[in-house]
Amino acid sequence: MLSKKINLEEKYLKFTKHWSPRIIAEMNNYQFKIAKIKGEFIWHDHKDTDETFLVIEGEMILKFRDYEVKLSQGEMYVVPKGVEHKPCAKDECKILVIEPRGVINTGDVGGDLTINEEVWI
Amino acid sequence: MLSKKINLEEKYLKFTKHWSPRIIAEMNNYQFKIAKIKGEFIWHDHKDTDETFLVIEGEMILKFRDYEVKLSQGEMYVVPKGVEHKPCAKDECKILVIEPRGVINTGDVGGDLTINEEVWI
Repeated sequence: MLSKKINLEEKYLKFTKHWSPRIIAEMNNYQFKIAKIKGEFIWHDHKDTDETFLVIEGEMILKFRDYEVKLSQGEMYVVPKGVEHKPCAKDECKILVIEPRGVINTGDVGGDLTINEEVWI
Repeated sequence: MLSKKINLEEKYLKFTKHWSPRIIAEMNNYQFKIAKIKGEFIWHDHKDTDETFLVIEGEMILKFRDYEVKLSQGEMYVVPKGVEHKPCAKDECKILVIEPRGVINTGDVGGDLTINEEVWI
């Protein structure tokens, strides 16, 4: 029953790899994942769920097919289900992602950046 | 289909009342709510759902019946469903709460602090 408090800054110290989300908490069947991102991810969507991005430090661009959104620290965005998007960051950016358990980071697209295992930190 | 980015700092400027959560986003059937808290809330639980607290600015205490947790900026906590808790803050604290749509802030306990209407900002 006991939970622990989660310090985001401490959690970010535990890994360095880009585009490699780590799970830090669960709420019902939803997961909180942190990631460090830099460069360009791939185009993908999630057919069955929305996905929330919150920028904890730095700046990212969420590209969509016909527009893009710049997110800075303290800004969030909910990507609706089924909408293709491509997360990008010029410099390293620390993000918090919230989505249901079991969502694959690359959607159905697959490829080298796909993370199939759940890594808790 | 279009969503907008959400700037937490701007959203907090839109209200001053304590213990009065405002909805800023939805992800599937979950809601993101911000609140300014100061003083002591009431003991309550949520029978059917976990509830996530993330401190955006300031410091809060989450009291439980047999322990308490101090949360500072950048720290989060998932209160498991059915666990009685009492949020408190000595000075004003800005928090982000994540929980399913329809959760009442005071659980089944009710009282003057109950917010029955959903207020979006």
